[in-house]
Amino acid sequence: MSLEFDLIQEFFQRGTGSEDVSLGIGDDAAIVEIPAGAQLVVTTDTLVEGGHFFKNDSAEDIGYKSLAVNLSDLAAMGATPKWFTLSLSMPIVNKAWLASFAKGLFILADKHAVSLVGGDTTKGPLNICIQALGIVSAGQAITRSNAVTDDDIYVTGTLGDAALGLLTLQNRTDLVGDIACACQARLRRPTPRVDVGMALQNNAHAMIDCSDGFAADLGHLLSASNKTAEIWLEKIPMSNSVSSWVATHNCWDTPLAGGDDYELIFTSPAEKRETIEALGLALSCPFSRVGKITNSGVTQYYHPDGQVLNLTNKGYSHF
Amino acid sequence: MSLEFDLIQEFFQRGTGSEDVSLGIGDDAAIVEIPAGAQLVVTTDTLVEGGHFFKNDSAEDIGYKSLAVNLSDLAAMGATPKWFTLSLSMPIVNKAWLASFAKGLFILADKHAVSLVGGDTTKGPLNICIQALGIVSAGQAITRSNAVTDDDIYVTGTLGDAALGLLTLQNRTDLVGDIACACQARLRRPTPRVDVGMALQNNAHAMIDCSDGFAADLGHLLSASNKTAEIWLEKIPMSNSVSSWVATHNCWDTPLAGGDDYELIFTSPAEKRETIEALGLALSCPFSRVGKITNSGVTQYYHPDGQVLNLTNKGYSHF
Repeated sequence: MSLEFDLIQEFFQRGTGSEDVSLGIGDDAAIVEIPAGAQLVVTTDTLVEGGHFFKNDSAEDIGYKSLAVNLSDLAAMGATPKWFTLSLSMPIVNKAWLASFAKGLFILADKHAVSLVGGDTTKGPLNICIQALGIVSAGQAITRSNAVTDDDIYVTGTLGDAALGLLTLQNRTDLVGDIACACQARLRRPTPRVDVGMALQNNAHAMIDCSDGFAADLGHLLSASNKTAEIWLEKIPMSNSVSSWVATHNCWDTPLAGGDDYELIFTSPAEKRETIEALGLALSCPFSRVGKITNSGVTQYYHPDGQVLNLTNKGYSHF
Repeated sequence: MSLEFDLIQEFFQRGTGSEDVSLGIGDDAAIVEIPAGAQLVVTTDTLVEGGHFFKNDSAEDIGYKSLAVNLSDLAAMGATPKWFTLSLSMPIVNKAWLASFAKGLFILADKHAVSLVGGDTTKGPLNICIQALGIVSAGQAITRSNAVTDDDIYVTGTLGDAALGLLTLQNRTDLVGDIACACQARLRRPTPRVDVGMALQNNAHAMIDCSDGFAADLGHLLSASNKTAEIWLEKIPMSNSVSSWVATHNCWDTPLAGGDDYELIFTSPAEKRETIEALGLALSCPFSRVGKITNSGVTQYYHPDGQVLNLTNKGYSHF
């Protein structure tokens, strides 16, 4: 029996107890059950050292984040996450690292009742590839491409905390203590907005998750919808720390181009405002209405005095 | 727009024309349609340099093999392959390499009418992770764990050619010319037995694909089925080159522990022999009956004179 087989058994094979998994880890492939009337939603995201985590990050955090970024993609479709596969390339077999990685992974998997159904381990530079599968009632997915002129534009939570956390790790801020730690936690353990995404079915026209920076991801949504937008800077939701950073540096890069927020950006028609507000309250998730969809041909970020922001940093580049 | 986005568009986004893809590459996730009465079959396999291909292998071969090994896993379940996702980590953006990789990938994808529905590109050491999705009529998948005592054991094609190809690359054989090239081609462009796997529904009790070496993979099937086997060495299907190697070196490692064959090993009851033979003929795929399932508690490989082979090499280890 190969070591690969042993590793999967020891760290990743668990009785899922899930009725929708007919055959889990341990065969050539897994078999899962799709409910009648549902469509399958499929996404994949890879994490590599340097790009998504650092050499000294805890394995538990890395495990958590690997799944979180994939669940965030499903959330951005309004899908219910169900299953995932894990391909793990590692330079050596470090069992303590694997146990910690699996712990972080399953903390989040259990929270959302998603089952690990397939695994693959390979010797190589550390690389974590997850593919997540979800379901959505036929025709109910929320894509990027359906924004309508005059739609409200919302974003969940606050923007820029993870980017500020990165700056603290790079010793590029004065932040220390609990606040620095809290920002770093936002970087290392982002919260995929799974419940919010699901609740926005029938309420949002278009949605995307904010992983490469608000401006870049809003740009993707606008491009896919063939629309433009006006954004009101005073409405951009920020923690006090990010707000101070923007004021001190007279620079909006941290909240608008920082990346790793994993908040949802969505659009919805004005007549849904009360519904949206009620949803945010019910889910204990702040929804900030930050602008509106236009068809002016140019997307602009406005200061309260009407001046237009010159946004130079366009967000995280994968290369 | 991020470079990642451009790369996916340029090299991997194609109109699939497939009715079962409701939303392809370009959103947070893809949406696909599962036919009523079907179960979803899910697998993932990663390829890294050194383990699965070499630095100087052509990108076209690497693209082809990346998908082939995943389709082989679906074939081993008797599933019909439908969709796949690709996560590609690369140290630099080399457009010529990407074009060649995509060409090899799509040659095989088109052959089996499978659609690429999701992509992710990341900067990092070269790592290719594919997740393949297939469907199977409810309850019809062929797992590893259902072998029955006295079942015939079959293997498709010939064993050891890819392993011999590897030996030629390592200058460990005298083979040259067309035969060396042919063995290397078996290593670089394995043939996933998709049609065979699908045709074996209702005809095979248990099945596995042979990727880590016949002995190791048969061992997985036996272990999952809680059975043992007797194997008749004179029935092991080999090309002339592999046969010569075995005779010259008085060693069965190449066909039995070589790895990278991607043939199917399956078991079926004796009363199906005519059906199985007819299937092999119809699909132009040699099926060799190499042994039978036992419950003796020990698996043995027999020489024609009744002597037992002492098999020391247990197959490819991933670490």
